[in-house]
Formats: sequence, structure tokens, C-alpha cells
Amino acid sequence: MNTKNKPLVGIIMGSTSDWDTMRHAAEALEQLGIPHEVEVVSAHRTPDKLFQYAEAAEHRGIEVIIAGAGGAAHLPGMVAAKTVVPVLGVPVQSKALNGMDSLLSIAQMPAGIPVGTLAIGRAGAANAALLAAAMLGNKYPEYRDALKRFRTAQTDKVLAKPDPREQD
Amino acid sequence: MNTKNKPLVGIIMGSTSDWDTMRHAAEALEQLGIPHEVEVVSAHRTPDKLFQYAEAAEHRGIEVIIAGAGGAAHLPGMVAAKTVVPVLGVPVQSKALNGMDSLLSIAQMPAGIPVGTLAIGRAGAANAALLAAAMLGNKYPEYRDALKRFRTAQTDKVLAKPDPREQD
Amino acid sequence: MNTKNKPLVGIIMGSTSDWDTMRHAAEALEQLGIPHEVEVVSAHRTPDKLFQYAEAAEHRGIEVIIAGAGGAAHLPGMVAAKTVVPVLGVPVQSKALNGMDSLLSIAQMPAGIPVGTLAIGRAGAANAALLAAAMLGNKYPEYRDALKRFRTAQTDKVLAKPDPREQD
Amino acid sequence: MNTKNKPLVGIIMGSTSDWDTMRHAAEALEQLGIPHEVEVVSAHRTPDKLFQYAEAAEHRGIEVIIAGAGGAAHLPGMVAAKTVVPVLGVPVQSKALNGMDSLLSIAQMPAGIPVGTLAIGRAGAANAALLAAAMLGNKYPEYRDALKRFRTAQTDKVLAKPDPREQD
Amino acid sequence: MNTKNKPLVGIIMGSTSDWDTMRHAAEALEQLGIPHEVEVVSAHRTPDKLFQYAEAAEHRGIEVIIAGAGGAAHLPGMVAAKTVVPVLGVPVQSKALNGMDSLLSIAQMPAGIPVGTLAIGRAGAANAALLAAAMLGNKYPEYRDALKRFRTAQTDKVLAKPDPREQD
Amino acid sequence: MNTKNKPLVGIIMGSTSDWDTMRHAAEALEQLGIPHEVEVVSAHRTPDKLFQYAEAAEHRGIEVIIAGAGGAAHLPGMVAAKTVVPVLGVPVQSKALNGMDSLLSIAQMPAGIPVGTLAIGRAGAANAALLAAAMLGNKYPEYRDALKRFRTAQTDKVLAKPDPREQD
Amino acid sequence: MNTKNKPLVGIIMGSTSDWDTMRHAAEALEQLGIPHEVEVVSAHRTPDKLFQYAEAAEHRGIEVIIAGAGGAAHLPGMVAAKTVVPVLGVPVQSKALNGMDSLLSIAQMPAGIPVGTLAIGRAGAANAALLAAAMLGNKYPEYRDALKRFRTAQTDKVLAKPDPREQD
Amino acid sequence: MNTKNKPLVGIIMGSTSDWDTMRHAAEALEQLGIPHEVEVVSAHRTPDKLFQYAEAAEHRGIEVIIAGAGGAAHLPGMVAAKTVVPVLGVPVQSKALNGMDSLLSIAQMPAGIPVGTLAIGRAGAANAALLAAAMLGNKYPEYRDALKRFRTAQTDKVLAKPDPREQD
Repeated sequence: MNTKNKPLVGIIMGSTSDWDTMRHAAEALEQLGIPHEVEVVSAHRTPDKLFQYAEAAEHRGIEVIIAGAGGAAHLPGMVAAKTVVPVLGVPVQSKALNGMDSLLSIAQMPAGIPVGTLAIGRAGAANAALLAAAMLGNKYPEYRDALKRFRTAQTDKVLAKPDPREQD
Repeated sequence: MNTKNKPLVGIIMGSTSDWDTMRHAAEALEQLGIPHEVEVVSAHRTPDKLFQYAEAAEHRGIEVIIAGAGGAAHLPGMVAAKTVVPVLGVPVQSKALNGMDSLLSIAQMPAGIPVGTLAIGRAGAANAALLAAAMLGNKYPEYRDALKRFRTAQTDKVLAKPDPREQD
Repeated sequence: MNTKNKPLVGIIMGSTSDWDTMRHAAEALEQLGIPHEVEVVSAHRTPDKLFQYAEAAEHRGIEVIIAGAGGAAHLPGMVAAKTVVPVLGVPVQSKALNGMDSLLSIAQMPAGIPVGTLAIGRAGAANAALLAAAMLGNKYPEYRDALKRFRTAQTDKVLAKPDPREQD
Repeated sequence: MNTKNKPLVGIIMGSTSDWDTMRHAAEALEQLGIPHEVEVVSAHRTPDKLFQYAEAAEHRGIEVIIAGAGGAAHLPGMVAAKTVVPVLGVPVQSKALNGMDSLLSIAQMPAGIPVGTLAIGRAGAANAALLAAAMLGNKYPEYRDALKRFRTAQTDKVLAKPDPREQD
Repeated sequence: MNTKNKPLVGIIMGSTSDWDTMRHAAEALEQLGIPHEVEVVSAHRTPDKLFQYAEAAEHRGIEVIIAGAGGAAHLPGMVAAKTVVPVLGVPVQSKALNGMDSLLSIAQMPAGIPVGTLAIGRAGAANAALLAAAMLGNKYPEYRDALKRFRTAQTDKVLAKPDPREQD
Repeated sequence: MNTKNKPLVGIIMGSTSDWDTMRHAAEALEQLGIPHEVEVVSAHRTPDKLFQYAEAAEHRGIEVIIAGAGGAAHLPGMVAAKTVVPVLGVPVQSKALNGMDSLLSIAQMPAGIPVGTLAIGRAGAANAALLAAAMLGNKYPEYRDALKRFRTAQTDKVLAKPDPREQD
Repeated sequence: MNTKNKPLVGIIMGSTSDWDTMRHAAEALEQLGIPHEVEVVSAHRTPDKLFQYAEAAEHRGIEVIIAGAGGAAHLPGMVAAKTVVPVLGVPVQSKALNGMDSLLSIAQMPAGIPVGTLAIGRAGAANAALLAAAMLGNKYPEYRDALKRFRTAQTDKVLAKPDPREQD
Repeated sequence: MNTKNKPLVGIIMGSTSDWDTMRHAAEALEQLGIPHEVEVVSAHRTPDKLFQYAEAAEHRGIEVIIAGAGGAAHLPGMVAAKTVVPVLGVPVQSKALNGMDSLLSIAQMPAGIPVGTLAIGRAGAANAALLAAAMLGNKYPEYRDALKRFRTAQTDKVLAKPDPREQD
């Protein structure tokens, strides 16, 4: 059991403007009771901080890093290059190309350094948290249980309202 | 320590023709000493087997599922819908659209059910194994160590040959 | 003749938010007098319900299934994998990629399990109903007649107002 | 039962060069025992023949039209504009754009005239035949049975060889 | 000289909703003093009218046809298939795919039947008129002169205000 | 009638490597008996020659310019900026992006300067010649007649071999 | 040191409507104290002015040209064809295709004439100025210093506010 | 004048497999007589070397860095984040997506850190060298002269062979 309440998941993002997307990762972790931290780390404007964050993550007890970025989204891949902690990447929807650039910049990593990429935007941010929970669930039974409860509730919510014509 | 040698990673793919891609996942796990299994499970041709595989995975001790598929690549997402074991998806390069369809079909999952998506093709398959190792490394120190050795060797190999004009 | 008024067409969709698109399928079937049912069935959040729905469809007398979904739109293809009733897929316009992901996820099915794919969004939903009517028209002359009346009215409406500069 | 052996499915294509793709539709219908005809009808080079074919189809007893075309693939949509027989479209893989142009030209029909679109290339051609069989199966039990046998055999073939490492 | 004031250019479009785009073609012809006509002709909803329009165009003295359509934009190509009068196509910006589908459906015609394709949307509509004027200018000196005046004025307007920081 | 046998159509291209594509324009004009000239004019490597060519075209009696280019294909648009002779653009299939870059660089001209864009590659080159013939046909009846004969022969050739299974 | 205060950077754009994007280049140069000029030069509507501008640039002391354009964005490449002064291109976000056409038209230059391409839209415009500063910094130490101060301030600003949840 | 013969341009690339592309940059610099160095620096496999290289570049006298990479091509942008020396990026053509991923990963940098992006593949590599020469030409007259000679020869070569039908 993870009793120490130290953050297990680090959520980082390239800019404060990414918070509107990445808050969905934080909220899902909150809901699952998984301790986490949130920080702005810019690959391009604060590259040294990026390297320090990535280098320190393992020893600080971070077990999953969720990195969100848009456009030429180098943050997830560069963090992954500097740590053996698993890195999940969230492509933030970009202004001109709607996140297609973000998606390709994160997903198309060369063999050797992986980033587990989620969907573009908020759904991807929420799912990064759920995938982190699934990963942590192998080691921490309480998070597996929390994820199962989340999933059951999610299923029940859909089953409870099968007719789309009934408005709330 | 994982001493029982039971498979911790399940590699599944939609068709035997995907093996040429997915073998790179198996080979990387082999190299890292992580026990795994390999099986063809088609989302469209064997949907019941897909559900059975996904439902049984957790209790069989599988801690990561790597699913490769091409085109309308439903296998990773549908496995993820039936298990709380983390699922990684490998977009196999498709004939007409070069894997762009595979990538979008795997990555663009809706909020609630995540798939950690890797790059299109062989690089993605190899990286799925490395990401699985990173995930397992939080729980099994021997796999973290194996991954670190792999990464160091990989770095050393690049450093050892800085001049691209020197042929082997 | 189909006299029993049992639903012949099942309209399903991945989320209540898809109803804004899929209502155009329901409205067209209504207009043609073809009995149908409407239900939310999520491939990812309610996979068991999806299988049950698909397995029961033929015996319940459903002759066409219209499935709408967006993003990694697995619903149409997975329903098709579990039934021999013809399945039509409607790509719902997604937020980031405007439905290009939905279109590819539905259309690019591998050989063996087909989905007849319509256009992205409302036009596709309406057309799924019209294609269902065309299919049912081979067996039920009254629906062929209804479709012919619909088509004639549609043609007459365009012919009646040839000058685009005349506003209503 | 369809005893007269007249063609129920018309396979048309824009050019003899499309036959390499469309033969997969013919072969699947052959395998299912569904009578069909095959003809080159070019939307752009033989527009009058296209109209005549479409206009005559219903009265000739054609119950499904499968139309394959590449590039600015107008054949399926224009046939659909001239008949109430259901039309399935197969996007042939084009030279420069790999069939993305064919796919969009066929799938993105406006509301009012539907084309059920299959995957790009050979898989799409084979699937057009299977979807035709599914459609005809509502009216002709023998084709539903044939389709079920095809599907069972297809499933069994995958189940029989679960290990992708075993070469034939 | 064209003295009879009969329309030399026929502007057709698939739907009244295309008028917002195609009016820019009409306005440019108006400005150049080139007689023209405007009509809604839907390839899919009024295919017979489309054929009649195309067949009659040459004998009615139409020397250029400008056809605008969106999505699976078959109108320009099918008109071109039925006449030897030159056809220019304007891809109307579509809702989901922003006119990329319209552009490919119009431009990617197979060898044998050409459509001269302009840019997506209003710029393309205006330019279709200017290209029609350039074509007619070879035969009708007054339209060449009108086009030269238009072009000179256009150039002068840019030259007159070289500093973008000066607002009108 | 055009009796002087001076070239009416100028075919230009950005590089000798484009000739493999553009020869299809020259061959079609040859077949139709339309006098033409062929020249390499590079927008980027010989910009002054491009301007001289465009400026002189009208007075030299050129009535249509066919310009082929690949990649950032500026040739057609820049020629069009310097002449009131109608310009047709042929997107040559580029190495990396298969001509999608060529197509957009040629078609997406701003309002004011049009280029009539044909399909990517050889089909587009042949069609540029046919569109030039259609344009010239308004003024030169012999080219209209030649085009009609070409079109009739083309139609007859398709009609003569309706069965794609019969090999030559 | 550059003491004469003559413009070293020329910012040009195809239309006054591009100023909303290109002002971000001017503002960044202003901030760095780099003398510059701003002018509308349309490749298509004022091709002669474009050539004159490009030809005169070197002798007027311009050391970097920043050219912004949208759609079939020929301005940067054509300027580059007429000068040995380095040219940077800014793809302006276009209406229909969101600047993907602009990006490809600018970046995909053939071997022989380069354009250094920046990101689509405002970020690209600002970055063109920063890249110009980096280039000039090799020759003018004061601009290198100015750029270093800009970069340090930029880094400090991100470091000063690491928590995205704290609103200003 | 640059008399010391120390490298002014640093050509780096992510992998020895990129040399087939990047050699075209080296060859063009060679031809222009610009001293340069060549080295493999992998953003993902040797991130520390990347930072060291970027940090040392200015003091080592490097005035332009040319960085080539494919797929999720982070090398150019990350080098740019660590130096004020101007960075040019060459998108190497990737296997699955033909370099579209490389192009977007390099070009779509956020405001603050620019990369001057060239065309995908060999043309882009050669052009990076030419753009470096143009940049250095402002400070080193001998390189400006060399570039002018290169450009004149390039123009003369095209002018010398205007007829594409004449084979060598």
C-alpha cells in the first residue's frame, strides 16, 4: 500500500495555457485518490529544468510522468529520454493544426525511447490519469480497486440512461 | 522479484501478418528478460476470444497487454474496454494509408478507456516493450535494472560512433 | 409487407452526445415510416451490452443496424463482428480532428467484417437511414415506395427553386 | 429463395484497371453462391451508360450495386443518384494519394443520396460482397446461411493458429 | 465582339447554400461585364437536369461552365463528362473537412475528362470568373481589356498602400 | 481557323525531371493537332526567364499556358501573376508528399490571380491539354471537332470492352 | 556594431490582412532593438515590386528578409529566388486549410533556393524575428546580447510561476 | 574573412541512418568552401551530449547549426532551446508518414524558440547549407561571393538546356 502520500504521478506541461487541458488528468487522479504533483516545465524555454525534473523523478518516488504539450510537442519525448520512469504524453490541441502536430510529435518516437501517447485534448488528459492508475494498480491494490470502482460507475452511468432522447 | 516465470506481458495482434511488426516487441522483452506470451487475437474475426483474453488477463497475472493492429485497429481499445490491466497499442503500418488510420483508431480513444499508443510500425512495437519494462520497473527492480542497462548500452552505442561518415 | 411494427432498424450510438447527429437518422426513418429503435451502446464503456445487443439483433428481427460514433469509433466495427445483420456506420464529427479519425476508424475495416460507412456528421446520419430504406426496399415494397416518394420530393424541391438568388 | 439464378448483385467499376481490386468482390460473391454480374462503367468516359445501367438496375432485378472507382471517384455516387437500389462504394487505391481521394469522393456524399462506403482497396472490395450478402440475407435465408458459414470458417481459421511464430 | 448579350458563362452549383460562395464568381463576371447565368443544378438530387444542362450548353452558346460544389463534389466532373465546353470547378468549403474533400473530389479527375480546379471557397469562386475572363479574352478582345483593367486596378490598389500599419 | 501553325499552347515545367509527367500534355496536344511549344522554365532557378516568358506570351500568340511543377510549385501561379493568358497548373507528384504539396501550392491561389488546377501527375498533364483544347474550341472550330473525335473514341473504347475479365 | 540605424531586417507580407500575424515579428524586433522595415509586397498582385524589392535588398543593407504569406504562399520562395540575402518564411493561417497549404507552399522548396520556414501563424512570426536576431548576432554582438537577455527573461518568467493552478 | 578554417557550421543528425540525407548539406558546404563539422547527436538516446553540444557551440565558434531528424524529430528544437546560435532543421523522410511527422515536429515550434525549417529530405538538406551560406554571407563576403557563383551556375545550367526532350 502507498501510505506515505508522496506524489506517485508527476503531471507536467509546457505552458500554463495547457492547464485547461491537463487539469482533467489532475481531476481524475484526485478522484482515484492517487497522490500527484503538478508543474509547468517547458522543454524549449526551461530545458535545464526539464532535465533536472526528469533526472530526479525516479529517486523522488515518481512512478509515472504525465506530460502534456502542443505543436512541436517535445516535452514528453525529452523527459522520456532522461528517465526510466514510464512517460505518458498528452497532445494538447494546437491552434492551427488542431493537435495533429502535437499527436505526431509525441507518438512518432524512434525505437529506444517510448512515450505512451493518449488522445488529443481533454479526453487524452483524463485517460493519461486512468492509464497511470492501471499501471500503478499492478503494485498498489488500492488503486486497482479505485480504478475498478471508477470503471463500474462509468459503465453503470451509461447503462442507466439508454435512451438518448431523454434529456436530463 | 518476479520469480515464477509466468508471463507478465501479453503480446496480442490482429493477424499473423502483424507478426513481422510485433516480433520487435517480443524481441525487446526477450532481451530484457521479461516473461511474456504471444497470441493472435482478432477483434473482428474472433471477438469472443478477445473478450475472454481481456477478462482473464488480470487473474492470469498479466500486468501489461501490448496489442498491435492495423487499419480500423480496434483490438487495443476493445481489450482496454474489458480489463483494468494497462494496455499499450501499436499501430501497424497499413497498406493504403501507411498507418495513419491505425494510429488514429488506437490513439483517439474517448475519455474513460485509455490506450497508451506507440509509434507506427516496428519502432512502436519495440517501444511498447520498453514502456512495459518501464512500467514493470516500478514493482520489479530487476526489470528496472535491465532497462537501465539497455538504455546505457543504447547511449554508449551512439556515443561510440559519432561520425556518420565512417561505415562499419 | 412489414405489418408487425416491430423495429426493423436499430440505431445505436456511443454516447448521448452523439444524439444531436444521430437524430437525423431517426427523423429520416420516421419520415419513411420505417419502425426503428434508438439506444446508447458504448463500445468502450459498455462492451458487454454491445455484444449482447449485436448477438440478439438478428433474432429480435432487426434487419439493419445503424451505429454512430466519434474519434476511435469502434462501435460499428465491433457490432459488425458479432452479427450477420448488415451494419452501417456514421462517423460523428470529433472535436479535434473534425471526424477524420471517426471516418478512418469506421471505414478502414479489414477484409472479413464490413461496415457500410456514410459521410461524417448529420448528412451521414440521414443517409444511413436512406441506405437502410434502400436495403429494406428489396424485401418490403412499401419502403421502396416510400423511398421513391422521398427522392421525388427531394428532386422536385431543387427543381422548384433553380435561382439561388431568390431568398425564401 | 432466389432460384432463378439471375444476377442479384451488379459489380461495376470505372476502368478495367480497377479489376485487380474489384475481383475480390466477385470472388467473395462466388464463394457465397450469390449470382452477380461484372461490368466496366465509367462515370466520366461513359456517362450515358452509367445512367442507363442505374436506371435499369431495379427492373432487371439487381438488389445491390457495388461500384469501385479511384481518384475523383464519382461512379458510386452518380449511380446512387439514379436508382433506389442500395449502392456500396469501394475506393480503389489511387497512385498519388493512396486512395484518400477515392475514399473522400465516395464517402462524403451530401444528405439525400447515400453510398455505403467500404475500406480502400482489396479489403474494401471483399467486404462490399460480404455486406451485400448481409443485406440479401434478410430476404434470402440461403445467403444468410452462406454468410454464417463463411464467418464461422473465418473465425475458426484464426482460432486454429493462435501462435504467429508458427509458419505454414 | 460579343454583342448579343446572351450568357457566355454558366455558373451552376449543387445547392442554394453554395450561393454564399458562388456569388463571388457572379460578382466578378458582373464587374468585368461578361454576360452569365446562375442556376442550382444538383448532381445527386437532380442528375437528369445536370445531364440536360451539360448537353445543351454548347448549343446555347455557353463557352465556360463554372461549377461549385462541396463534400463529394461530383457536379463539376459530371458536367465535364457530358460536354466539350471547358468546365471550371470551385470546391466549396465543407463543414467537417473544410473543403479538402471538395478539392480532391474535383481536382483528382482521371485522364480523359478535365476540370480546371480553383481554390477552396470564395477566393476560388472569384478566380473562376477571372479565369473564365482570361479564356474568353482570346476570342473577345473586350473581355481581355476588361481583365487587364481589373488586374491593373488590383495592382495599383496594393501599391497605393504599402504600409500595413496604416488603417483605413 | 488557326492556319499559321504558330504555337497556341505553351507547355512549361520547372525541371527536366518533370518531362516524364508533362510529356503527357504534349502528346495529347499532338494527338489533337494543336500547335504547341515545350520549355523548361524554373520559377526558383530562372525567375527572370519566367517573367520574360509570361510577359511575352500574349504577344507571341500563346493562348493557353500549361505549367507543371512539384513541391512548393510556384511556377503556375507566378506565370499567372504576369500574364492575362489563361494558365493551367499540373501538380507533379513529389517524392515525399506524393504531390499533395504540389496540389495545394498550385490550387490555393488567393483571389485575384487564378490557376486552373488539374489532377496530380500524368492524368493531370493529359487533362491540361484536353482542357486547353476545350478552351481553344470556342474560338477554333477545328479543335472543338478534334476534341469531340477524341472524346467519342475514348467513350467507344470503354464501351467496346465492358467485361474487365477479358484480357487483351 | 550596427550604428547607422538603417533597417537590417525587411518584413514583407502578401496582404494587409497578414499584418495581424506579422506584427508579432515587428514587435519582437522592436523589443530586441533591431532596425527593420515593414511593407506589403504581393507575389501575385505586385510581382514586379516583389522582384524590385528582392533585387535591391542586398545593396540597401537588408541582411534578413522575413516574408509572410498564406494559402499558395509564393512570396517567400520567389523573394529567395531573386536574392542571396537569407529569407525566412512565415506561413499565415489560411481560412480553409488552417495554414497547412501555407506551410507546404513555403517549406517544400526544391534544392537550390532555400527558405527557412517557421511555424504557422503568430508564433511563427515572432520566431522569425528571433531567428533573424540569432543570425544577426553572429555579426552584431549587441543583438546577440539582446537575444540572450530576451531568452533569459523568457526562461525566468516560466520558472517564476511553476504552478499552473495559480491564476494571475 | 574567415581565415582560421575552424568549422563555422555544425551539421548534426539523430542517427547514422540520417547521413544519406544530411550528406547533401555537407556536400553543398564543401562546394561553397565553408568549413563545417559533422556529428551524430541523438536527442533521445544521447540527450546529455545534445545539451553539451548546444551549450558549447557558440564558444567553439559555430555560427550556424544544421540539425536533421525524422519522425518525432526533437533534435533541432532542443538544440535551439540550449543556444542562441541560429538553428536550421531538416525533416528527414520517415518510413511510415513520409516525413510529414518530421516536418511538423520541427516547424511547429512555440513562440520563443525558433527553428528555420527546410524541405523534407535531400532537397532540404542541401538547402540548409545554402541558407547557412546566405546567413554567413552577411559577415563573410567570400561566402556571399561563393553563393552568388553557385546561384549563377545553377541558373546557367537550366538556361543552357531549355528543351526537356533533349536527353543528355
